[in-house]
Formats: sequence, structure tokens, C-alpha cells
Amino acid sequence: MKDIIIIGGGFAGINLARSLGGNKHYRVTLVDKNNYNFFPPLIYQVATAFLEPSSISYPFRKLFRHKHNLFFRLGELKKVVLEENKVVLSNGELHYDYLVFATGAETNYFGLQNVKKHAIPMKTLHDAIDMRNRLLQQMEQAIITQDEEERRKLLTIVIAGGGPTGVEVSGMLAEMGRSILQKDYPELKGAYGEIYLVDGSEALLSPMSEKSQRNTLEAVRKLGVKTRLNTRVKDYVDDMAILDSGESIPTKSLIWATGITARVFDGIPADSYGRGKRMLTDAFNQVQGTTNIYAIGDTCLQTTDAKFPNGHPQVAQVAIQQGKHLARNFKAMAAGRPPAPFAYHDKGSMAIIGRNKAVADLPPSLHFKGFIAFFLWLFVHLMSLINYRNRLKTLYNWTVAYFSRDQSLRMIIRPDEENLT
Amino acid sequence: MKDIIIIGGGFAGINLARSLGGNKHYRVTLVDKNNYNFFPPLIYQVATAFLEPSSISYPFRKLFRHKHNLFFRLGELKKVVLEENKVVLSNGELHYDYLVFATGAETNYFGLQNVKKHAIPMKTLHDAIDMRNRLLQQMEQAIITQDEEERRKLLTIVIAGGGPTGVEVSGMLAEMGRSILQKDYPELKGAYGEIYLVDGSEALLSPMSEKSQRNTLEAVRKLGVKTRLNTRVKDYVDDMAILDSGESIPTKSLIWATGITARVFDGIPADSYGRGKRMLTDAFNQVQGTTNIYAIGDTCLQTTDAKFPNGHPQVAQVAIQQGKHLARNFKAMAAGRPPAPFAYHDKGSMAIIGRNKAVADLPPSLHFKGFIAFFLWLFVHLMSLINYRNRLKTLYNWTVAYFSRDQSLRMIIRPDEENLT
Repeated sequence: MKDIIIIGGGFAGINLARSLGGNKHYRVTLVDKNNYNFFPPLIYQVATAFLEPSSISYPFRKLFRHKHNLFFRLGELKKVVLEENKVVLSNGELHYDYLVFATGAETNYFGLQNVKKHAIPMKTLHDAIDMRNRLLQQMEQAIITQDEEERRKLLTIVIAGGGPTGVEVSGMLAEMGRSILQKDYPELKGAYGEIYLVDGSEALLSPMSEKSQRNTLEAVRKLGVKTRLNTRVKDYVDDMAILDSGESIPTKSLIWATGITARVFDGIPADSYGRGKRMLTDAFNQVQGTTNIYAIGDTCLQTTDAKFPNGHPQVAQVAIQQGKHLARNFKAMAAGRPPAPFAYHDKGSMAIIGRNKAVADLPPSLHFKGFIAFFLWLFVHLMSLINYRNRLKTLYNWTVAYFSRDQSLRMIIRPDEENLT
Repeated sequence: MKDIIIIGGGFAGINLARSLGGNKHYRVTLVDKNNYNFFPPLIYQVATAFLEPSSISYPFRKLFRHKHNLFFRLGELKKVVLEENKVVLSNGELHYDYLVFATGAETNYFGLQNVKKHAIPMKTLHDAIDMRNRLLQQMEQAIITQDEEERRKLLTIVIAGGGPTGVEVSGMLAEMGRSILQKDYPELKGAYGEIYLVDGSEALLSPMSEKSQRNTLEAVRKLGVKTRLNTRVKDYVDDMAILDSGESIPTKSLIWATGITARVFDGIPADSYGRGKRMLTDAFNQVQGTTNIYAIGDTCLQTTDAKFPNGHPQVAQVAIQQGKHLARNFKAMAAGRPPAPFAYHDKGSMAIIGRNKAVADLPPSLHFKGFIAFFLWLFVHLMSLINYRNRLKTLYNWTVAYFSRDQSLRMIIRPDEENLT
């Protein structure tokens, strides 16, 4: 039995591991710094208190049960020792025959140190819980303060990045301001802050169709969100989001939903990396300059796919398909058959805006908006949640939230030691 | 309108506040350092990953909606200034006409500094999440270590305190060791640790009937829990729980579920406190030596109730009844009628052991055990959960957990900065 070590249990890693479950040629160990897989497309709903963390996450060990060749190891990759075929983790070492990087991407602050220090990222489950706690605490402070200027800063939210996450968060927060906050914070007497959505390109959801972009812009503005297109946040100083247009917006909440970057690992040759620190691979996802190392998902830059000469978009569908594809290739190799090159099948994209609007593009040229797109979105996301129980819970949460225009997860749960200010 | 300030939103505070909801004589502000009420009898289920934190907690602001005289303030009490009728909070000041302490009790380490530093408390929702994360991380370490001795320490759990919490936690962990851990951690190959339950008195659940005590001891032992009665933990040094019997148990997990203490507040005269730092009150819950300050629940020591000359037990029922009773007295005072003295009506007590056993004493002399007691326990706790939605979710979680002998909340969700070891 050969040892496959997978670093990272996101879409790519988990699909690779599960597709090899029960295989008699490979023993698969998945290494992750968390003990659970989570579903990134819905972390904005955890951040806005619609869903519980547990509704969109699932322990690896439970996923791997009954598959006797699948193992989980809690740990963080520190170094690869190519000559010895081993990885050094934060808590030990592992030998591999094949090593697979499925390490995804992390928030990119583009070197803006003030932003990195004070903005709210939206990439991990813990980011989402932090955002929830922080926004709720700021509401409480807004009630106490006697300073009008301070209150405005506490209630104003600037979202950098008009991709799906930015659009979804801004829509959700705008809905919340209308329906829930007015009921929960009567002390504010209608003094609610503004929500700004800032994006560097000329449209929201820039990879989507023009039609969907127009629909999205219209829907977001209708919800009261102020948009700033062709504009970037260039600094964040003294509670002031400074835009490159010259405008400055006073806010205590800058949500950073723009830009991601892959990571560089000790032991991997420098010329194995391409644009955005992504690992350059051949058509079989093998990393350039290595013999038994592979990369899949966001961290992989593969330019052999005819339709995507600059590499694939860093989206869930690519990661899922690459994970499953690499599993097939491993099986082929074990059977003495040649591996097949990877080709991405675009299944379309969608985003949800506020309570019951969405946009969806289905290739080659179908566009949906409004309620139909909303149901499409619900269906696709619900089906993608990793197990039945999470689906049921999420459907229940959504149904209650939809009809009650409310959500009840507004608890600030944090370590006791954190002082109140 | 007179101002009532309630410090603390546990059973006592929340029942007082809600009973005054809509009253036209009083404006009520509840101050708490959390923005949610939670249900302490079930935190052991959060700790053992059966329930989500949100299933047993509820935001104050949502509870107070539609009651225009009820307000919530996030903050911590720093000082009372009696002469000025004001409280100084961590984030501002509030004036009161009546001040009510419903501050509950906190974990008592009896001066054992090593225990305070390294043991796992079981009093707050955050304690419960911490315990969950810590036990799960130790399981992961147990798999990695090559050191037999170290593995035994990682897998052994000592629970100090044989009250309901200790009994419930030990039963739950014993069940988990049997059913879940073997499936999730095949690497351990049956090398599971022991669970010890240590109590200073001669029986478990010492305030309950002898019959229930006997049944509990029997049930707990059947689950494989090792009991040490008439024994106390006197120190915790180098991963070694040192008992006063001379025995020492190597363990990385000492769960501290024994002993609580009330708290002393700056500004309240020293002679207003009695045993266990509880505030001495008259029959109307007015604190000795003050004119407009009251204490209810665990923090109150009232010796005027004929059946309880040494004060009431520090249990949920007393807190609930005192909260409601004080509300009636406030209403009486507003109407010019005299207040009534408090008298506690004991509704019985119960505890659950493992998956489907429980004991219940209903006064004057009814005892139940086994399945009937289990259903009684389910019914009473479900009815006590604060709103319908939490009840439904909890019932669902319990049903799934019961039939699947499993629970799925085994995610270690913690700040990214915390390093893995």
C-alpha cells in the first residue's frame, strides 16, 4: 500500500480523500489544522448569525468512518523534505509516497498593514464568528456612546470586494438593519448606519454575465447599500476607510472580502510557484520540478486546459473536480493505466442578494434572477452541504429565518478573559 | 417611573425582568457581561458535544422585544455608590431607584491555585466550549504520542464533584468512550482511558434521597465510571490529581464540578455578606444594611424561610421562584400593598445518567429511576428552555443522538492564533 498525504481538507482535499475511500492500493492521510471540514460559500451566513458554525462544518473523523484506508491527522505543515519523502508537521513527521497540496488560499491584504491589523477578514469559520461578535459588540457600544460622530462610526460598515461574499454580506446586513436591528435596539431610535460596498472593477460580481451584474447592482442598491465601483480601499487609519477615489468613510467595521493568495511552503523549490503563489502543475496536477507531488484547488495553477490558458478561476467547482479527477488518476496509475489530463466543466455561478433575490448564470447562456435564481441557489447549496443532518438543520434555519424575517443566533460567545470596553 | 437595575441575567434576573415586562411603574434595565441568557443545567451537553451553544442560549434583546419598559445593557459591574444610588459599570454608569443582585455564583477552587490554573471548570457556556475543544484536542494528541504513559494521561479523565453536573458529565463521557470514540479513533485500538468520579461526601448526589443515591451509584459504575467517595482532590501537580486518600491519578483532564461561591462587590458593606459570600437578606429579599438593594438566587442567603433556616439550596428553582416573587413584591409596593415574605416550594430534583437512565425525587416521597425518570428529565428540561425554537432544536438533537448513539458537534472551533502542539 502506498501512502498519500493530503495537506488541507477543503473542497479539493476532501473530494480527493473520499474518492479514494476503500481503495486497496492507497493509505490516505489528510492533514489539516482544524479537525473539521467547512463549507466556505456559507460562512457569510454564520457571520450574519443566520447559521450556526456546526451547520456548515463536519468533523473529518466522522467523514472518514468505515473507510479503513482513510486517516486524519490534526497538525500544520511546517516543511517538506523532498529527498526523504517526508513532511514535518507542527507535531510530528509523516512519510509519503505521494504528497498532495490542497492548501487553498488565504486572505490577501496586498501589503496594507493597517488593513491587515484592523479589518475583518471573511475566509475561515473563525473569521465569521469573529465578525458576528464584533458587529454585535459595536451595536452595544453604539447605544452607550453619547458622541454622535462615534455612533456613526460604530454603525457604518464598509465592505471591500464586490464578489459573491461582498455582495452576499452587504445584502444580508442591509436586510438586518431594516428588520431586526430596529426591533432589537429601540434605543437607537432609527439612527442606523450606512453600508458601503467598494469594488475595484467596473461591476459587481465581475466574473458573471453582464446581465447578472446589472441585476445585482440594482438589487443591492434597492436594499440601500451604497456602491463605489472602480474604487479600491487603499488604507484604513483612525477608523477611516480611505478610498483611492479621494473619499474617506468613517467606520469601525471594514470587512475585507477582496483578494486571496496562495501560500509558499518551506522545501518546495521557488520555481514551482507561479502567479499568486499558486503551484504550477502539468495537466495531471503534478507540481513542476517534482516527481511525486501534486497540487489541486485554489493553490494550483494549471495552464494546460485549452479553455483556461491563464489557469482556472479559484472557485469551489474547480477544486471539487480536480480532487475527484486526481483520485481517478491515482486509481489509473495503480492499475497501470496512464493518467488523464484535467479539463474543467463550468457548471455556472450564482450569488444571493438579501432575503429572496439571487442571480445565476448557467452555461452556455442561461441567466436567472429573482425568486427562481433564489431557489436555484438554495437547492445547489443545500445539496452541497456535506451530510444529511447538516442539510436538514440548514433548511430548518433558513425556513424559520425566511418566514420570521429574523434569526436568533445573536449571542456573543467569546473567552471570558476578553474584557468588555 | 422608577428605575430597577438588575445585575445578572441568569434564572433569577431573567424571571424578575420578564415578570415586570409591560409594567407601567418600573423601567427595568438588566446588566450582564454576556448578551445572552443561557440554561446552566444543560451546559454539560454542550461540553460533551451533544448540543450547540445556541440551543441553550438566547439573546437578551430578543427576549425583551415588545416590552417597552425592559432594557438590556452589556457591561460588567465595577462598583456600587450607595449614597448616589448609582452603579459604575465597565463602560458607564447607571442610576437606580432599586438595585437587584442576581449575580449567581462562580466556580470555587477552595484556594487550590494549581487546580484553578489547570483544571477545567464547568460553570459558563464558554467553559463548556473550552472543555469540548480541550478533550477533543487531547484525543488527537493521544493518537500521535508514542509514549504509553503520556497516552494514559491524555485519555484519563478525573471529575471532581459528584453533584448533578459531575454525575451527568461522567455518564456522558463513559457512553461516548464506548460508542463514538472507538469508531472515530481506530488508531487507539481499544486503548481507552478511565473515568474517575470523586466526591467528598459518602454518596453521589448528596442532596437527593438515599434511594436515588444508590441507584445513581449503581448506574454510574455499570457505565464503567470508577467512583471515589469520601474523597477530595487536594492538589493537581504535574498532570497528577492528588486525592486526600493518598491515591494519585495521572491525568491531563481534571474537570472541576465541585463547589461554588458568590462574589463580593465594591460598595456593598462587608456585614451584608454571610456564608459563601452570599448576601444576607430579609424575608423580602432586601439586603441587610441597605434600603433599596435586593438579592435573589444563588447570591442570596435568606434564613427567614421556616423550612430552610440555614438558607435555601443554590439551585435553579429557588432562583426562578425568587425572581418571580420579587416582581410580585415590586408590583405590590407600587400599588401601596405590603410585600409578602418568600417561601420556597420544592418541586423535586433529578439527574440524568448516561444515555437513557435518570433518577428523580418528587416531594414528598416519590422516587423514580430508569426510563420513567429519563422521560421526566427530558420533559422538564425541554419545557424550561427559554423559547420554542430552542426547544424544537434541542428535541431534534436529542432524538438524533439517541437513536444514532452519536453526536456530530465534534468540531474544535477556536481562534486561529492558538497554536497546535
